[in-house]
Amino acid sequence: MIPHGLSNEMALRTQRIADQLKSQGTDAILVSENANLYYTSGRVFCGFTYITADGDVTYFVRRPVGLTGDNVRYIRKPEQIAELLPQMPQSIALELDSAPFSTVERLRKVFGDARVANGSDILRRCRAVKTPYEIARLTESGVHHAMAYSRIPRIYRGGMTDVELQVEIERVLRNEGCLGQFRIAGGSMELFMGNLLTGENADAPSPYDFAMGGAGLDLSLPVGCNGSAINPGQTVMVDMCGNFTGYMTDMTRVYYVGRLDPTAAKAHQLSIDIHHRLAQEFHAGCEAKRMWEVAMEIVAEAGMDDYFMGHAQKAGFVGHGVGIEVNELPVLAPRSRDVLEDGNVIAIEPKFVIPHVGAVGIENTYVVRPDRLECITNAPEPLTELLYY
Amino acid sequence: MIPHGLSNEMALRTQRIADQLKSQGTDAILVSENANLYYTSGRVFCGFTYITADGDVTYFVRRPVGLTGDNVRYIRKPEQIAELLPQMPQSIALELDSAPFSTVERLRKVFGDARVANGSDILRRCRAVKTPYEIARLTESGVHHAMAYSRIPRIYRGGMTDVELQVEIERVLRNEGCLGQFRIAGGSMELFMGNLLTGENADAPSPYDFAMGGAGLDLSLPVGCNGSAINPGQTVMVDMCGNFTGYMTDMTRVYYVGRLDPTAAKAHQLSIDIHHRLAQEFHAGCEAKRMWEVAMEIVAEAGMDDYFMGHAQKAGFVGHGVGIEVNELPVLAPRSRDVLEDGNVIAIEPKFVIPHVGAVGIENTYVVRPDRLECITNAPEPLTELLYY
Repeated sequence: MIPHGLSNEMALRTQRIADQLKSQGTDAILVSENANLYYTSGRVFCGFTYITADGDVTYFVRRPVGLTGDNVRYIRKPEQIAELLPQMPQSIALELDSAPFSTVERLRKVFGDARVANGSDILRRCRAVKTPYEIARLTESGVHHAMAYSRIPRIYRGGMTDVELQVEIERVLRNEGCLGQFRIAGGSMELFMGNLLTGENADAPSPYDFAMGGAGLDLSLPVGCNGSAINPGQTVMVDMCGNFTGYMTDMTRVYYVGRLDPTAAKAHQLSIDIHHRLAQEFHAGCEAKRMWEVAMEIVAEAGMDDYFMGHAQKAGFVGHGVGIEVNELPVLAPRSRDVLEDGNVIAIEPKFVIPHVGAVGIENTYVVRPDRLECITNAPEPLTELLYY
Repeated sequence: MIPHGLSNEMALRTQRIADQLKSQGTDAILVSENANLYYTSGRVFCGFTYITADGDVTYFVRRPVGLTGDNVRYIRKPEQIAELLPQMPQSIALELDSAPFSTVERLRKVFGDARVANGSDILRRCRAVKTPYEIARLTESGVHHAMAYSRIPRIYRGGMTDVELQVEIERVLRNEGCLGQFRIAGGSMELFMGNLLTGENADAPSPYDFAMGGAGLDLSLPVGCNGSAINPGQTVMVDMCGNFTGYMTDMTRVYYVGRLDPTAAKAHQLSIDIHHRLAQEFHAGCEAKRMWEVAMEIVAEAGMDDYFMGHAQKAGFVGHGVGIEVNELPVLAPRSRDVLEDGNVIAIEPKFVIPHVGAVGIENTYVVRPDRLECITNAPEPLTELLYY
């Protein structure tokens, strides 16, 4: 069941979950969602991970066939779990924030009169603090992510539309080992392989809660590139999928064609300055909302508020945790109550939309350390010219 | 709000939903999931579509900014819906099968003492019978889908791995206009842009409820190509994303390299025979489960049961509805109670896994008509040789 070499890693993760269960007085948790199944077993499978407050783990598997291990039980339907448990819990945590209503209703019946607790928060909190193994996987994603981006100037050709350039970047990412899958918590956010924005389209509002928008190619997926020509004097923001290892880094770089708009250049440098300031001043123990406040102070001082985190429509955060999914804890937003912890991995993305020109600003992924933020998406940060040829 | 030219189309769809509400005695439905928001408004937005049994529609929008229309109301949070409704419903349908438990709990509070009904089934049933407009979108997807596949023999190069070929096919699909997004109902199914299988890997079981498996490139997404070399004597099954219009066709074609395994050739022809038989005999009014039974009879007669719909692990269906999502109604499976309706659009996929060789069999998408099935993924069906050069 557990992939070779990951027994200790999975024991560490399940112990964390067990500790959380114990501290809130819940007997057990039943995990059913893919990202959490992957977190608790090292693989996505169809079934459930059952963890008790004492740290005992059982994997109830429906598919695939052929998984083995002392704590693996094959089932056809969740109702069989009750028969297979040595003792029934008095209280059970379920993923109330992500599992569908009907699924939760079915699962709670499996546990008879057990009190139901919300397991979503437990799993979110555990997953927010990465293990050294997870940080190594994220670091590996970051290396490939940066390597793929380094090829962008070489694949640009004069006359390309935004979507034509995006498709070539997708190919470079995939050939670099990107799995493509862009995992987002919450069913109402969708994105295919990332977001590339140029010119006016950078200011088109989207329904999704991403930092940047774009009209998209179709009203069924209204975000990102929309078939615009990449014109001289405009920027091209590239914010594409960093899932190379099951763990996603988040990274944005910006390019321009022809000539560089001075407001765009100023805003881009401001983004870099914000990154450097935050990376110097923040570390484990700091309040996440202070990162938003410091960024806002720097932006206000430069008189660039109008463009910050969008123009026609603004995003209400300057960064977020990343890991198996792209929107994990902590949240770097004004009302966030999160405090940075050693082992958090966060993407910081102070961005600006300059009307008619495009979006600028970089995004990097950082590991939160006791005394600093450690960048794992290392690549040149200045605006890079895309040369016609 | 409603895209230009689609007012009558949306009125038709909402009237269908209203009729369903009326027939089951429910006062209104509140739609919150992306696929259903797209169905009821012609666009994905962040918010809710509210439809009464009398056919009145209100769009409660959180994002994006700038949508207009008589029946558009901007809200910050769902609790505001109660204040904006002219009268509160006595009973309200919610998407219990797809909306998260916490979301449903929050929404039901908005409606006070209203009885809660399951709206998922209403929407599934309505969406299963496509309008002429939707059939036109699916037909358009099918044309592009077939066009992209026609280029596959020209992009193959000797020595390619399965993933290298898949990445080139992804690029061809995207340049043909594919939106990439592979919408699947149910959070436990995931696939990136489709499935390409060769050799032994075709027999690797996956956790997902797709017709075919594959080990995948990573345990975080264990399905599809796994980096295998494409060897002489093996087949390459291509089953990639057909979302060109917000509506997805489903289409599979099979290629081979070097020499053609005779069992694979026989099984592939059997799949084609099954298609022709089903397309001749079935039409609106037929039982969906009979398609499974007829397919099984043909396979048993040919003595190919061992390989049908998988070998190490078998899928329990031979086809399924397609539309905005890839797994819609009707289901062509032994226990299905669905009866084919005029306007259903179904993918039929009788496939075989030949151990050590690969997967064979074609998949086509058909519109169910009163007197026949009309294929909308028209492309040559025989096994096609991929030539080294």
